[in-house]
Amino acid sequence: MKEIKSIAVLASRFAMLPGVGRKTALRYAHAVIDMSEQEVDAFCDALRDVKNSVRLCSVCGNYTDGEVCDLCASRPSKQVCVVAYPKDVAAIEKTGAFDGVYHVLHGTLSPMNNRTPDDLNIKSLMARLDGTDEVIVATNPDVEGEATAVYLARLIKPLGIKVTRIAQGISMGSELEYADSVTLSQALDRRTSL
Amino acid sequence: MKEIKSIAVLASRFAMLPGVGRKTALRYAHAVIDMSEQEVDAFCDALRDVKNSVRLCSVCGNYTDGEVCDLCASRPSKQVCVVAYPKDVAAIEKTGAFDGVYHVLHGTLSPMNNRTPDDLNIKSLMARLDGTDEVIVATNPDVEGEATAVYLARLIKPLGIKVTRIAQGISMGSELEYADSVTLSQALDRRTSL
Repeated sequence: MKEIKSIAVLASRFAMLPGVGRKTALRYAHAVIDMSEQEVDAFCDALRDVKNSVRLCSVCGNYTDGEVCDLCASRPSKQVCVVAYPKDVAAIEKTGAFDGVYHVLHGTLSPMNNRTPDDLNIKSLMARLDGTDEVIVATNPDVEGEATAVYLARLIKPLGIKVTRIAQGISMGSELEYADSVTLSQALDRRTSL
Repeated sequence: MKEIKSIAVLASRFAMLPGVGRKTALRYAHAVIDMSEQEVDAFCDALRDVKNSVRLCSVCGNYTDGEVCDLCASRPSKQVCVVAYPKDVAAIEKTGAFDGVYHVLHGTLSPMNNRTPDDLNIKSLMARLDGTDEVIVATNPDVEGEATAVYLARLIKPLGIKVTRIAQGISMGSELEYADSVTLSQALDRRTSL
C-alpha cells in the first residue's frame, strides 16, 4: 500500500518530538486530518507564536516572553537554585518549597557528548552572584549532574559563597521532571554542603 | 510561577492529539522551543499540507491524495473488507493476508453517541457492490462493532452477496488463564475442526 506523502512528512515531524515513535507519530498525523481547517491554522499559529515570543531570560536563562523573567524580577537573589533545564524550574516551583531565584544551565557537563563548561549558561551565573549567600545545585542525581555540581562548587566556593546540593532523597538514575513533589521538596530541605 | 501564555496555548493544541495529556503536551511544547525556526516552519507546512492534500477516496472513503485511492484503482473488487477507520486498513494491509478492496465507514453504529447509519459511509458502500461476491465486516469485536456488523448483514444479504465477519477467539500468544470469559466462551462456541 502506497503511503500518502503528506501524511508521511507530517508523521516524520511529529516523530521529532521527545518520546514519539513511528506509530504514535502516524496516529497524531491521522488526528490532524480529522481536525477542522480552523484548528490546523490555530495549531500553526501556536507553533510559530512559541518560536517568536519565547526567549531566554537575560539573567537566569529560563524561558520568558519579556527581557527578564517574572521570578528574577520579583524574588530576592540571596539563594540561587541551579538547574539543567527550564522544565526543572517548573518541577521545583510546583513544590512551593523554594522562594529564591533559579539559574538554568541548559544542559550538564558531558565529556561523552562534548558538552564543556563553555556550552552551558555558566558565565551569566558567575556574573549574577553579587549579594548571593548560597547556590543550590539541583541537577539530576546522575553522573553528568554530579559532575556539573562538583564543577560549580569548585568554581563558586572560592568566592566565599556557600554551595549546596539537593539531598539524594531522589533515587539515583531517576529524573527531576518525574519526581513527586514530596520527594522533591524533601530533597530541597536536606541539601548538604559540597 | 506565571505560565508563559504562548507555551500554554501550544500545549493545549498538542493536548488535542489522541492520548496526549497535560504533562506530555507541555513536554512537546518545550521541544518546539528548542527547534530551529526552519524546523518550526517545516512543521507548519506539513500540518497545512496534510489538511489541504488529503481527502477521502470517492469510492471507499479511505485517505488519498487523488480522486480514487491506489487500492480501489488497482485491485479487484470481488471481496470488500469493511472497517471502521483508515488506521484499520493499514493494520490489515500489514498482514499481507488480504488482496481485495476496503470500505471505510468512519465510525460504528452507536446509539449512545447518536451515531446512526446516516452518519456512516454506508451509502457509497451500497453503491459499489455491483459484481461483489463477499463483504467481510472487520469492525472491532465490541458492542458497537458487532451492532454495525449485524446491521450491514441485514442490509446486504438480501442482495445475494455473502456477508462474513472476522473470526473472534483467543489471540495468538495470549494465555487461556488470563482471557476474559466472553472471549473464552466465544472461542469454544466457534471451535473449528482440526
